[in-house]
Amino acid sequence: MTYPYPQLNRPSFHWERQRSTEPKVSDWIETFEVQDEIDFQAVDVTVLGVPLSRSSISASGASETPLAMRQLWKSFNPYHIEYDTDLTSLSVLDLGDVEQHVTDISLSHQYIKEAMISMRKYHPHTLPIMLGGDHSITAMLVKGWKESHPEQRIGILQFDTHFDLRSLEDNGPSNGTPIRNLIESGTVEGKNVWNIGLHGFYNSKSLKEYADTHKVNYVTLLQARKTGISCIVERALDDLAKKVDVIYLTVDMDVLDVAYA
Amino acid sequence: MTYPYPQLNRPSFHWERQRSTEPKVSDWIETFEVQDEIDFQAVDVTVLGVPLSRSSISASGASETPLAMRQLWKSFNPYHIEYDTDLTSLSVLDLGDVEQHVTDISLSHQYIKEAMISMRKYHPHTLPIMLGGDHSITAMLVKGWKESHPEQRIGILQFDTHFDLRSLEDNGPSNGTPIRNLIESGTVEGKNVWNIGLHGFYNSKSLKEYADTHKVNYVTLLQARKTGISCIVERALDDLAKKVDVIYLTVDMDVLDVAYA
Amino acid sequence: MTYPYPQLNRPSFHWERQRSTEPKVSDWIETFEVQDEIDFQAVDVTVLGVPLSRSSISASGASETPLAMRQLWKSFNPYHIEYDTDLTSLSVLDLGDVEQHVTDISLSHQYIKEAMISMRKYHPHTLPIMLGGDHSITAMLVKGWKESHPEQRIGILQFDTHFDLRSLEDNGPSNGTPIRNLIESGTVEGKNVWNIGLHGFYNSKSLKEYADTHKVNYVTLLQARKTGISCIVERALDDLAKKVDVIYLTVDMDVLDVAYA
Amino acid sequence: MTYPYPQLNRPSFHWERQRSTEPKVSDWIETFEVQDEIDFQAVDVTVLGVPLSRSSISASGASETPLAMRQLWKSFNPYHIEYDTDLTSLSVLDLGDVEQHVTDISLSHQYIKEAMISMRKYHPHTLPIMLGGDHSITAMLVKGWKESHPEQRIGILQFDTHFDLRSLEDNGPSNGTPIRNLIESGTVEGKNVWNIGLHGFYNSKSLKEYADTHKVNYVTLLQARKTGISCIVERALDDLAKKVDVIYLTVDMDVLDVAYA
Amino acid sequence: MTYPYPQLNRPSFHWERQRSTEPKVSDWIETFEVQDEIDFQAVDVTVLGVPLSRSSISASGASETPLAMRQLWKSFNPYHIEYDTDLTSLSVLDLGDVEQHVTDISLSHQYIKEAMISMRKYHPHTLPIMLGGDHSITAMLVKGWKESHPEQRIGILQFDTHFDLRSLEDNGPSNGTPIRNLIESGTVEGKNVWNIGLHGFYNSKSLKEYADTHKVNYVTLLQARKTGISCIVERALDDLAKKVDVIYLTVDMDVLDVAYA
Amino acid sequence: MTYPYPQLNRPSFHWERQRSTEPKVSDWIETFEVQDEIDFQAVDVTVLGVPLSRSSISASGASETPLAMRQLWKSFNPYHIEYDTDLTSLSVLDLGDVEQHVTDISLSHQYIKEAMISMRKYHPHTLPIMLGGDHSITAMLVKGWKESHPEQRIGILQFDTHFDLRSLEDNGPSNGTPIRNLIESGTVEGKNVWNIGLHGFYNSKSLKEYADTHKVNYVTLLQARKTGISCIVERALDDLAKKVDVIYLTVDMDVLDVAYA
Repeated sequence: MTYPYPQLNRPSFHWERQRSTEPKVSDWIETFEVQDEIDFQAVDVTVLGVPLSRSSISASGASETPLAMRQLWKSFNPYHIEYDTDLTSLSVLDLGDVEQHVTDISLSHQYIKEAMISMRKYHPHTLPIMLGGDHSITAMLVKGWKESHPEQRIGILQFDTHFDLRSLEDNGPSNGTPIRNLIESGTVEGKNVWNIGLHGFYNSKSLKEYADTHKVNYVTLLQARKTGISCIVERALDDLAKKVDVIYLTVDMDVLDVAYA
Repeated sequence: MTYPYPQLNRPSFHWERQRSTEPKVSDWIETFEVQDEIDFQAVDVTVLGVPLSRSSISASGASETPLAMRQLWKSFNPYHIEYDTDLTSLSVLDLGDVEQHVTDISLSHQYIKEAMISMRKYHPHTLPIMLGGDHSITAMLVKGWKESHPEQRIGILQFDTHFDLRSLEDNGPSNGTPIRNLIESGTVEGKNVWNIGLHGFYNSKSLKEYADTHKVNYVTLLQARKTGISCIVERALDDLAKKVDVIYLTVDMDVLDVAYA
Repeated sequence: MTYPYPQLNRPSFHWERQRSTEPKVSDWIETFEVQDEIDFQAVDVTVLGVPLSRSSISASGASETPLAMRQLWKSFNPYHIEYDTDLTSLSVLDLGDVEQHVTDISLSHQYIKEAMISMRKYHPHTLPIMLGGDHSITAMLVKGWKESHPEQRIGILQFDTHFDLRSLEDNGPSNGTPIRNLIESGTVEGKNVWNIGLHGFYNSKSLKEYADTHKVNYVTLLQARKTGISCIVERALDDLAKKVDVIYLTVDMDVLDVAYA
Repeated sequence: MTYPYPQLNRPSFHWERQRSTEPKVSDWIETFEVQDEIDFQAVDVTVLGVPLSRSSISASGASETPLAMRQLWKSFNPYHIEYDTDLTSLSVLDLGDVEQHVTDISLSHQYIKEAMISMRKYHPHTLPIMLGGDHSITAMLVKGWKESHPEQRIGILQFDTHFDLRSLEDNGPSNGTPIRNLIESGTVEGKNVWNIGLHGFYNSKSLKEYADTHKVNYVTLLQARKTGISCIVERALDDLAKKVDVIYLTVDMDVLDVAYA
Repeated sequence: MTYPYPQLNRPSFHWERQRSTEPKVSDWIETFEVQDEIDFQAVDVTVLGVPLSRSSISASGASETPLAMRQLWKSFNPYHIEYDTDLTSLSVLDLGDVEQHVTDISLSHQYIKEAMISMRKYHPHTLPIMLGGDHSITAMLVKGWKESHPEQRIGILQFDTHFDLRSLEDNGPSNGTPIRNLIESGTVEGKNVWNIGLHGFYNSKSLKEYADTHKVNYVTLLQARKTGISCIVERALDDLAKKVDVIYLTVDMDVLDVAYA
Repeated sequence: MTYPYPQLNRPSFHWERQRSTEPKVSDWIETFEVQDEIDFQAVDVTVLGVPLSRSSISASGASETPLAMRQLWKSFNPYHIEYDTDLTSLSVLDLGDVEQHVTDISLSHQYIKEAMISMRKYHPHTLPIMLGGDHSITAMLVKGWKESHPEQRIGILQFDTHFDLRSLEDNGPSNGTPIRNLIESGTVEGKNVWNIGLHGFYNSKSLKEYADTHKVNYVTLLQARKTGISCIVERALDDLAKKVDVIYLTVDMDVLDVAYA
């Protein structure tokens, strides 16, 4: 199959992959070559960059993250010593970046949603990993998934310092709103969201009240540390396992969004 | 007159102004207090922040510039020793910042244009100074002026490393396009633009060709240094004086746009 | 009551406070306006900047801290998610900064002491919070309190990497001396001081011996982590509760002194 | 012809080249693909990375320069506005980096020399541009050229703050020695070296005396500014034109060596 | 005895040592004066700088560490409050730095080995502490010890994020190879190495397999935190106590190698 | 003669001086050893550190400058290539730093003055170079000179962005006041001061008026560049040569005060 994504740009650069007994991540992950025929059957995981940060409430460089992460691939091994896990048994393909418009944010959001729909249509057996971009993209990606699989109930496992439950009325689908966006659009139910890691003076009380009203599950960092973070994660996964068909994981660390469903 | 600007937010903070024989800029420039009646007749200059950087081609923090510049007012004197010029004879009023929408860039652009129109309507005798913001705002501000004074011919004196003549077709009115935007909309004629300071490997050849076709005047940094920068500026002003009614000055130094008409 | 502090300068700037369902700290804390009549009865907490760092043993920028902290008020919410605590029920007034002399440190120290005396005299029901400044100010503030309330026994709860028990003989009341200053002046008894957090190679043995001689209570970071920091704090508070009438809390993190009595 | 360089590694990454009316340098310069047949006849310029900094007297990161420069190709246009020069008429091929040994510096130096010999042998009509690397590489590259063209007299045009005339006796062919290395090995005559830009307290007097003894031409920054830098360069080129067959240009800016012959 | 080290340079600078009740590390550690007769009998500990980083796989400034650490001696007290330990009862002598060649890494390695041999020969009762330098030096130092004490079995206690078990075949004795170097040369048996702190994606699987084959003991950071780091260290020391005569401790924190035997 | 300065501390550290054909500044300048008998007759220049920054209007680290400059001596050669000047013919002795009190600025100022008096008394033939410190020290140093040589008329050649003519009434002899201090104390006449380099928005108009009233000579940076800086300096020296017996040169670059008389 040739490159099937009108909304995507090929990765802006490729590492020269080398055979080695000490491979780097850059030797492992494949990227498209112009002339490639892609055998998606042989691909386990797809990587997708979403270089958007115009939708951030405050000025943000998160749009540089996909490039920066690809550049770091040469500094890491695909083997994790603490878990004795060798990732190279998985075949990973870097699809490139979702095309982003400079002055029309809603168009960029639409492309993001369509990219997810395309991935679910052309190679639904692959696990998508998205590299953001500000957190507004989570709403678009999950909506794309829902449109592809309308029958599925979707859960969210969110590691975040913020609720991201701000109202869309004032400023549209900014990076402060994705979870509310998903709840209000009926894409995800509040009770199927678990937010772990809220802390400090970074949320207003009104957002906490919204979370309570919509039965969003949340565990503050203080609680998570007392109980044990792995224990809390297990509890969240057990709860979601009973209620949903698929879980979208999102890690928001201001500059880093890693997400897969 | 009370605060007449629906598109403006009052300055986010005020310096406590103090009487002193060694005043700082922060002791000189006035800002609105909530309860103020404004006597615009007594105001010579108005300052307007335009905290927009979403329309930048690459990730930019230029939206922080108006705040950063106000914070620096306490570090400078309103007296320039080299020109022996005391600015305190001018009455300067900080109007605040143009309201900016988080996810609708065209709405932000519209507010910017409207703010200029309001300034020209309510206190046309004042000299407006705008603190950007990325360079896309120049197109909006000059269009606002033109709408207020349709009979006037407008000249542009631009200090810039770029032409800012990119096509609007691909990515809309981004920070690479304002001068072309003004030319193609008929707001300013190419021959009434002087761009001083172009240099290095920062412009494509196609933009230079566009400039030539539309008779934009430009002087590269190399030429300006050979001839003398003040001489070049004089030449530009002489030329514009013959052809236009009003000159809009814009200084684009990536993070700094100071503009007045 | 009008502004009653000859030793104080009004805050150097005010945030424009806004009504919002998502208020920031800058929307909550009030600052003086020139024309204000102050109803101190309605104020629960007063904030006082003490921008002194000339009395530091090594070059320090701690005098910039009060300004820097006020500038950060716009970045934080007055609601803490982990403790579900909304601070906006408290009325907080920013009094401004204690006047500091450029070349006469003892005069600056005297102003600091007098500012505390004024606060205790004019609005003794308010809780003062002081933003330093180097740690020499703790001696002056506590002495001011003692002069206002000579009958009260004062305890100190200190979070610090240093004892701050250096001799005043060599270099006067520097930032290495405040606790010794209070002990030797009879303001506070050594046994009523609890220092939590000492660690590493930052104290000389002779200071530890002074602490032992004067029965200063101290818990190193190593001990605090073994026992549990909250447990140690509880133990300190229990001990002080039996022995003193009022506790002065001081947090010395090199650039940050938050203190209240 | 297939890739003919045993001492070279292909470029560690490729930019995805795109057709555009506003091309970037990364869209212009070609890099090898594994399967490429190279038609060297069509290549005007070859780029060679020399990522060596182990031979620097003080700790240096100059070995990162070739990678860093390739990463910057996306930030520059191949058109220079001040000289109205469009570089895209030249065909440029990035050959990759000279293999460098981690603990055997003399082996790395040998590879560098051999890479130059190969370039001169397989495609002598191309202009080589080398991206260093510390300045020790200049000795190796020029020796390689000399071995390929023993009949040619070679001149050096050097822009540098240092003479690079240190003795090789103490510490071998370090980055302080390349010009002396070339003189003492008979590769280049001292009178055929022009060093422009020496300044400040960065050279010892003994090196100046060596330069005088060997009739090295040098112009300090002070002299160059008085006379005019372009005038000095012209004078150097005129002088060399009379005496040598080929000129090797080297620019040493601590972190940047651009060299071509 | 006069200075007995041909391979050593005296410390490049001395702190002026002062008598004080609050001594700093710089007042405690002695350095050579040119005219000194050294009474090694009175010295408990010797400090040796090893300013080598040319043997690092990636560009490194670790050669600056010995100088940087000496400069920091003025910022620390020789008393540790958490362990109530006063180091001044030990007599410590700074011997200076091992001479390093700029372009011959194997010669530098040889000097490092010889410096250890000299220390063991002239004052075997002193405890050597070495300040690196990249981790390649550990192989040289331990080989020097072994040559001085061929009858001793040596154990290694290594705190490291890497195995440092790379093959020497490709790139010689780089900073990725010291432990393998010691094993393959028969200096240390794999079972007498304990590596604590391995973590993340920084090691290839093949190195883990080498460690297993050679029975190197290792504890990942995850395991160490679960069990308790002090517990793991005790376990390692107990194990080594049964099997070896002397333990070489090495702490590799990229820029910091503190080692003693 | 033994060390004759009660107000001085020996240099806090010494470089190990080495004989070399490529000496560094650290190999050239001598520092005291404890046991030294000093033959001041053989000394041409004395260096004195003045590590004071407490008297700065804004927080300053200028007190670190003497240490920082001594640390840089190893990075520079005592030979200047552009002027072909070898400084090693001069014998330079580093006397150490003036003792500074932590909390009594006037005492520190007194020590500074006394240090100058001692230098003029014990070795009046040496040229003193002082390393500041903030600019308040200039007043103390020049007063010390005047007290030693009451019959001499003193001129000041000042390179500065500020007038340093602020009133001493408000904040005492801060770093904004030294020239006014010297004029008002009758130490130096205004007409014997030349200030070169004033520029920008860094001075208040009132200070310029003070300068005019007291006939201080000043040349702004704009004027100096137009006329040529060396020409202006020559003019200043010619003027001072006619009017004074000795010239004190002071260079204030915020972090750098180099002064000699």
